[in-house]
Amino acid sequence: MSNGDIFVGEVLGTSILVLFGAGVCAAVTLKHSKARAAGWVVIAFGWGFGVLAGAYTAGPLSGGQLNPAVTIGIAIDTGSWDKVWIYLCGEMTGALLGAVLAYLAYFAQFQANADKDDALPTLGIFSTIPEIRNPVANLVTEIIATIGLVLPVLSFGNTKGLGESGVTVLVVALLVVGIGLSLGGPTGYAINPARDLGPRIVHALLPIPNKGTSDWSYAWIPVVGPLIGGALGGLIHHAAF
Amino acid sequence: MSNGDIFVGEVLGTSILVLFGAGVCAAVTLKHSKARAAGWVVIAFGWGFGVLAGAYTAGPLSGGQLNPAVTIGIAIDTGSWDKVWIYLCGEMTGALLGAVLAYLAYFAQFQANADKDDALPTLGIFSTIPEIRNPVANLVTEIIATIGLVLPVLSFGNTKGLGESGVTVLVVALLVVGIGLSLGGPTGYAINPARDLGPRIVHALLPIPNKGTSDWSYAWIPVVGPLIGGALGGLIHHAAF
Amino acid sequence: MSNGDIFVGEVLGTSILVLFGAGVCAAVTLKHSKARAAGWVVIAFGWGFGVLAGAYTAGPLSGGQLNPAVTIGIAIDTGSWDKVWIYLCGEMTGALLGAVLAYLAYFAQFQANADKDDALPTLGIFSTIPEIRNPVANLVTEIIATIGLVLPVLSFGNTKGLGESGVTVLVVALLVVGIGLSLGGPTGYAINPARDLGPRIVHALLPIPNKGTSDWSYAWIPVVGPLIGGALGGLIHHAAF
Amino acid sequence: MSNGDIFVGEVLGTSILVLFGAGVCAAVTLKHSKARAAGWVVIAFGWGFGVLAGAYTAGPLSGGQLNPAVTIGIAIDTGSWDKVWIYLCGEMTGALLGAVLAYLAYFAQFQANADKDDALPTLGIFSTIPEIRNPVANLVTEIIATIGLVLPVLSFGNTKGLGESGVTVLVVALLVVGIGLSLGGPTGYAINPARDLGPRIVHALLPIPNKGTSDWSYAWIPVVGPLIGGALGGLIHHAAF
Repeated sequence: MSNGDIFVGEVLGTSILVLFGAGVCAAVTLKHSKARAAGWVVIAFGWGFGVLAGAYTAGPLSGGQLNPAVTIGIAIDTGSWDKVWIYLCGEMTGALLGAVLAYLAYFAQFQANADKDDALPTLGIFSTIPEIRNPVANLVTEIIATIGLVLPVLSFGNTKGLGESGVTVLVVALLVVGIGLSLGGPTGYAINPARDLGPRIVHALLPIPNKGTSDWSYAWIPVVGPLIGGALGGLIHHAAF
Repeated sequence: MSNGDIFVGEVLGTSILVLFGAGVCAAVTLKHSKARAAGWVVIAFGWGFGVLAGAYTAGPLSGGQLNPAVTIGIAIDTGSWDKVWIYLCGEMTGALLGAVLAYLAYFAQFQANADKDDALPTLGIFSTIPEIRNPVANLVTEIIATIGLVLPVLSFGNTKGLGESGVTVLVVALLVVGIGLSLGGPTGYAINPARDLGPRIVHALLPIPNKGTSDWSYAWIPVVGPLIGGALGGLIHHAAF
Repeated sequence: MSNGDIFVGEVLGTSILVLFGAGVCAAVTLKHSKARAAGWVVIAFGWGFGVLAGAYTAGPLSGGQLNPAVTIGIAIDTGSWDKVWIYLCGEMTGALLGAVLAYLAYFAQFQANADKDDALPTLGIFSTIPEIRNPVANLVTEIIATIGLVLPVLSFGNTKGLGESGVTVLVVALLVVGIGLSLGGPTGYAINPARDLGPRIVHALLPIPNKGTSDWSYAWIPVVGPLIGGALGGLIHHAAF
Repeated sequence: MSNGDIFVGEVLGTSILVLFGAGVCAAVTLKHSKARAAGWVVIAFGWGFGVLAGAYTAGPLSGGQLNPAVTIGIAIDTGSWDKVWIYLCGEMTGALLGAVLAYLAYFAQFQANADKDDALPTLGIFSTIPEIRNPVANLVTEIIATIGLVLPVLSFGNTKGLGESGVTVLVVALLVVGIGLSLGGPTGYAINPARDLGPRIVHALLPIPNKGTSDWSYAWIPVVGPLIGGALGGLIHHAAF
């Protein structure tokens, strides 16, 4: 894979992932949305099928990592670091682009948030917010959830037939649904630094009416936690296989 | 594939798609339905599995496009336009037929809508209605959502093994579930001109008690938006791959 | 496939299907169930994954038809009728057995239905009940829904790779989920004469406290409707392919 | 497969299974969780996708049994018992580890359970509790539900193409979703002695505020029932195939 293909693949794939993911959070959160208050099962399947859409799109170009935690996990597992910076650039660029697209897709809904008495906080559409603010516990949750992503993803590569039949991405998507259902309760499961930091930057910059805080004091946890979790996932896989 | 096979395939497939899709909207909307008020997750999976049913049925005959936006996207991507008109005719015919079948499947429920004081509007069962009426924003939403359909669908064709193992349609179906969950909130995600225009014509013609308006002033958006989105999806895929 | 294998396969598979299907209806209906009132999405996925469990179990022995409407559809499509009676015997036997197993799995819940003031009707756990009692409309609904099952199922056999990769049954299962979501609203989607008649017989015979009527006047519709639908599905497939 | 690979695979896989499974129960049960009260469909998909995550991870090392009932069923079906003890040791070790990980992932939520007036019982997050306490009925439910797991799982091995295309575990995961939806109502579907006993031990030992009873008088049923069900599943499969 050429550097150009990797970059284009990761930009396209991550932008689709974040478009779907921020989209489903907007769908469930904002007034005047047909999916308003549709519940956690919709959030989890929305993000998971965002992985399906994005990673299948990116796959033939870049392998479809879409997540710095996965990129680090693969690098640690394989010992191959030379393309990592291209993946990270593509993932961050895609995450920024995807958040803008989600904003445009829900533009009228965001504008309807202008009435101050009626406004809903919008950060949760873009980035994660913990239910209980406790840095150590939040970090541990993100680490465990990201191990729960990266270790199985690496193991899919050892599974006979999965790559040949083209269903690896489908299985990754359902895995991400499962992480959302099972491990998303405490922090909203960033499990992907680009997916959280990119949209947070977009949230800070966009002129959303009554958008509320971008909560920068929390922003390091959904970056550092997933990176540690991805590294541990890579180490465990390397040791076990 | 012969012209006859393409036409028959698209008619069968699109009629099944619209039967399931209008069916699930009837199921969730109408009184005296066991799925009454079952929520957005039911809508999204109902339409997605309608794609599964329709596209697998059409697949061996026509490839199972079922959607003018997909047909346009493929034509732009491949440069092959000579069969496009057959696909479009089949898709529109199938959409008309499917809407009639959904009406027949829920006939007693539609008749129970006769009591004027109790009647529910029925257009939303057949065609899309925006939550906030804003032509530019609605058009942008449909364009973005349709890119989110057509670009991944084209990329599935680049994915090693997917075609050989016969699961491409399954993946498309889950992608459509994801689009519904994530991007359906503002406009109800037509993402398919035939799926919206065909049932709207049927709604206008059928003698449904207290059926309400067919809302023709909005009808161009779910036609034009998906066609633009399909074209852009084809262009992006052609440029990236 | 020997006659013995066919019979054993259909008995095992249909009993598992009905165990899961009647089970999920019990789970959502009966008091003192953890899934009480869990909604239509649970019903639809429960029946669909019952197909997954039953048809994969039966598959290597009998092909896993589990449904007289499917059996008739295949016979009409292929012109091969000599094994039909074995399939039908196996399917009915399995449906009876599965309903008894579901009763045993929810035995304590059924016993808790003894308090007359508090008792819930139990027929809906075993067999279908229309929301609006209208024989012609109910029959049409069952016919359309069963065409929506049998035509795609027959088309899966024309899909390149699906059989070789072993995922046909998975796709059938998701199709059945879709039929439940989209077309189950009016009559509760029998789409399978054995699935409705077998459990109705068991409901009539079992000593369930306060079980209510077995509603024999309706019983012919979920038998005749699916048989007509299966035959039409077979005819359409035979004509189109 | 070496004994070491089997042990490591079963520990990793079962710990991931229980992390996801106990995780989803915590997500739905505990206050201050984003998935609070998200319903039975979330429980069933959470456990099922825990199987997906755990069994794909374990698969290349140990085959991914993750469940003593499955291990016993396979041993009875194949007559090969010499590795059974390694599987059981790995499964129990993994179940203990997974329960601790779920506790850590929801640490802040468990700590928030300290307020006595507000505390929720926590055993249901770790282990199963019957809705109606009736040892014979509860045992029968677990036996039937475990046959519904083990018999199809063994039949997947007879299904042409499933192993070659790498989707067996995906199908097992959806089967487990189905068992949860359909047969989980009465007892909460242990269907796996390690999944119930391991977390119960962890629940008894962990210093969870206001954790309530560990209910040891019930603990034998979710061990004995699944073992009987697994054995019967193995016997039925051996007889039928």
